[in-house]
Amino acid sequence: MFRTITSRLAFSVRQAEETVKPRIAYAQRSGRRIKEKVALMQAKRKEAGETGAPEKPGKFVLKTGKGTRDYGPAQSALRNSVLQTVTETFNRYGAETIDTPVFELRDVLMGKYGEEGGKLVYDLQDQGGELLSLRYDLTVPFARYLAMNKITNITRYQIAKVYRRDQPVMSRGRYREFYQCDFDIAGQYDLMLPEAECLGIVDELLTKLEIGEFFINLNHRLILEGMFAVSGIPAKDFKTICSSVDKLDKTPWEDVEQEMINEKFLTKEQTGKLGELVRFRELNSDLNNLELLEKMSQLPDLGQNDKFKKGAEELKVLIEYLNVDGVTTVRYEPSLARGLDYYTGAIYEAVAPKALEGTAVENSEDTAGQPVGVGSVAAGGRYDGLVKMFDSKANVPCCGVSFGIERLFAIMEARQKVAIRTTQTEVYVASAQKNLVRDRKKLVKMLRSAGIKTEMALKANPKLLTQFQYAEERRIPLAIVIGEQELKDGVVKLRNVVTRDEQTIKLDQLITAVRDTLAAL
Amino acid sequence: MFRTITSRLAFSVRQAEETVKPRIAYAQRSGRRIKEKVALMQAKRKEAGETGAPEKPGKFVLKTGKGTRDYGPAQSALRNSVLQTVTETFNRYGAETIDTPVFELRDVLMGKYGEEGGKLVYDLQDQGGELLSLRYDLTVPFARYLAMNKITNITRYQIAKVYRRDQPVMSRGRYREFYQCDFDIAGQYDLMLPEAECLGIVDELLTKLEIGEFFINLNHRLILEGMFAVSGIPAKDFKTICSSVDKLDKTPWEDVEQEMINEKFLTKEQTGKLGELVRFRELNSDLNNLELLEKMSQLPDLGQNDKFKKGAEELKVLIEYLNVDGVTTVRYEPSLARGLDYYTGAIYEAVAPKALEGTAVENSEDTAGQPVGVGSVAAGGRYDGLVKMFDSKANVPCCGVSFGIERLFAIMEARQKVAIRTTQTEVYVASAQKNLVRDRKKLVKMLRSAGIKTEMALKANPKLLTQFQYAEERRIPLAIVIGEQELKDGVVKLRNVVTRDEQTIKLDQLITAVRDTLAAL
Repeated sequence: MFRTITSRLAFSVRQAEETVKPRIAYAQRSGRRIKEKVALMQAKRKEAGETGAPEKPGKFVLKTGKGTRDYGPAQSALRNSVLQTVTETFNRYGAETIDTPVFELRDVLMGKYGEEGGKLVYDLQDQGGELLSLRYDLTVPFARYLAMNKITNITRYQIAKVYRRDQPVMSRGRYREFYQCDFDIAGQYDLMLPEAECLGIVDELLTKLEIGEFFINLNHRLILEGMFAVSGIPAKDFKTICSSVDKLDKTPWEDVEQEMINEKFLTKEQTGKLGELVRFRELNSDLNNLELLEKMSQLPDLGQNDKFKKGAEELKVLIEYLNVDGVTTVRYEPSLARGLDYYTGAIYEAVAPKALEGTAVENSEDTAGQPVGVGSVAAGGRYDGLVKMFDSKANVPCCGVSFGIERLFAIMEARQKVAIRTTQTEVYVASAQKNLVRDRKKLVKMLRSAGIKTEMALKANPKLLTQFQYAEERRIPLAIVIGEQELKDGVVKLRNVVTRDEQTIKLDQLITAVRDTLAAL
Repeated sequence: MFRTITSRLAFSVRQAEETVKPRIAYAQRSGRRIKEKVALMQAKRKEAGETGAPEKPGKFVLKTGKGTRDYGPAQSALRNSVLQTVTETFNRYGAETIDTPVFELRDVLMGKYGEEGGKLVYDLQDQGGELLSLRYDLTVPFARYLAMNKITNITRYQIAKVYRRDQPVMSRGRYREFYQCDFDIAGQYDLMLPEAECLGIVDELLTKLEIGEFFINLNHRLILEGMFAVSGIPAKDFKTICSSVDKLDKTPWEDVEQEMINEKFLTKEQTGKLGELVRFRELNSDLNNLELLEKMSQLPDLGQNDKFKKGAEELKVLIEYLNVDGVTTVRYEPSLARGLDYYTGAIYEAVAPKALEGTAVENSEDTAGQPVGVGSVAAGGRYDGLVKMFDSKANVPCCGVSFGIERLFAIMEARQKVAIRTTQTEVYVASAQKNLVRDRKKLVKMLRSAGIKTEMALKANPKLLTQFQYAEERRIPLAIVIGEQELKDGVVKLRNVVTRDEQTIKLDQLITAVRDTLAAL
């Protein structure tokens, strides 16, 4: 039951699985190239500051913990700019936010992430008192929060770091400490209205972030169950067959079919039938979402299956709402089959296959020689059983979406034409002669008091050239220059740092002039 | 050397020391009252949701780890609003921001917090691989970041949670997981210019936050060393005598003097001389900062002490800069003596003694019967030896300030007249009849596309009264109401949720009308 609670946002775990197999094959192919790659990787890591040589060997190595990193000013500024767009979108949808502790009682987390996830949880040392572990995602703490506070009704987002003792693959952006960004609607609402809100947010946010073409695959648990049933696949095989079917976005049908026959012991008859159904979009590419559902409903066996009928009816309602909302990026895809022990209804996943097109990252390879592609950037669905894990009497239906926010950071970083500024400084106050530090300070104070972001050199007698260079490097748009003559005349020079144009402004008109000039930039 | 690195922001540790002693006395005084207090405390905690009864006893207790808490929507909204003011102020001063991992290699933290702090560090369990611990403050990770990346020059702020296995006292706002908020200027700059920036930020931010009257005590390490020297106090006693002197803000001189004589074995002659100096402001309350420094400089012995002379000269420069900046809240206070193994130059601490005046918290007591007062809300100073801990060749002078941000949250919470809204929703779209869910959705989409924060009931056929109630409870300022007649006429009703005034607006003028109405509110 809990094993795939992780699948919702566990892009990383999935990626690990995807990466491991080709890696082994690759290792067999070429031992020599491996060594080259490793050397290259090590060089890159060193360059990226992942390891620092200790000043005094034998003291200790100056580094961050394995799989973690600092966000320097440039990365922090980019991240904050992305998160601002994200939270603005959540706020447009009326969401609240909450914050939960970075660690939970071990009992709260235990068993919730399944065997696989459980191994990856960071435990705190027993120092007397309670046994604690670092959170592995934001979903289990959210469920704990709802159950503990008897909350039956909340639309909330949470953006925070989570911790997984995974094998880090820095070049693929897989870390042991990383941000998650979840939006969830908990509460008793009417059919598909919460799901439409979630998909609306995905559509709106990915559009705002300008990550290039994207689409949102949509399916329903009951449709998968119905398709499996009419293909003669026993319910006990649901999970393992789902994991094969879900590979269809990257693997040809023939390979997936072979896997199901050779490794999962389906008959050719079973796979033949299942293939017709899960490939229904692929085989009917001229049909739109509602037409696909309609045509599937007319199939003699599937059309009579109660589970399929219920799932299809629900998706039709959702698709109709999305049409009203003008969301055109959603694509009914019967082969989408992720997180299905966890999800109870609609499931969805957004992909942006061309997000890195034309960027430096596009053609690069990771350390295993695999192309660094962009997979899922958001995923979610309905999960009505979550809060029951903590309170068996609670009935708090939920649906939500998790954004692959670290992947979105990486995409935005790759796509930015000009590196983002790390400060917001608008004006730099400079002096042309010595002994003007007090006069610079007075101007700085005046500008800051007016709400204008202002800096000056923290030197008593800085050189003018040095001051201009600093302003240019930091891309501060305006400089104010004073000298003895200006002070006598009660004026300053207002300088456009880029064009180097200067105009003389009376002191009592300075604030207005700065505001106008900034507004006109 | 490292023992008091914590003192900079370790309000909590200090509070613990302050609390423990009265507590013991109190316990001896009255066993009965203790029991009453404990019962009251337990009831309060239960009320505050700190413990939740498990649904099935024997399963597990549904709670957060000891000394930690969730921030619900109301607390999160308040916190975000305070942090917005904080970051805006930092940005006005040209600061960058960085982020470091929540855990560090144990070796990086080890020995940096001294014996006392070391015991309070959370260690992660050894699960194979590196030994890790949760950060105890943001200063040691900052120093590690600078040394590791060979950064000699940065003005940065960082707002993040830190972890201390302290005895939590929830009623005094002391938790095991809490936010710190640090602003630091690292780099080779000219005398007192960085300090003036730090004090400017404290002055500006505390003014913006409207926490009532506050002032910033200022002293200098060398002034303390000079005063001790001319009082005949050996250098080895510096630290222990500092800890006595620092109590003068709360304890009468006579008690402090007795402590120094009885517990620290000073002679009456030594304490008599020291008392004249550390109480210099108290004994010369008519003098301003520069006059105090001047008068002290004229004392025959102190005025000849080289350390005092250097410290006083530096503070004069700083005070003169602060006068230029118009910062009037700074008060030279020769008895301020905190964090002095760590600080190498100027030290400062902001206090807001009346911040809780007139609030519900003002007269309340904590669980030990102590009044819940407001101590230091910001503290800092110059610490030039920090980065050397990690790189003995590095010379990166630093000065900075840490805000007691959890205390500021508590003050803001107590002082707010009306609880902060937990969502930012501007418009609620309601329907007066059934079967209008699609029409509501269309309006919601239209408004959101125009950037207006909009919600509607996620029910197909909600009652009008229920919808209005929701909008009122959530303090959403505007509602748009549609019915069959309005749809026919191509209009909507725009309702002021507070006054309940309604006006009829044509659909194509709706966005403008909403914007104008919101702007006029």
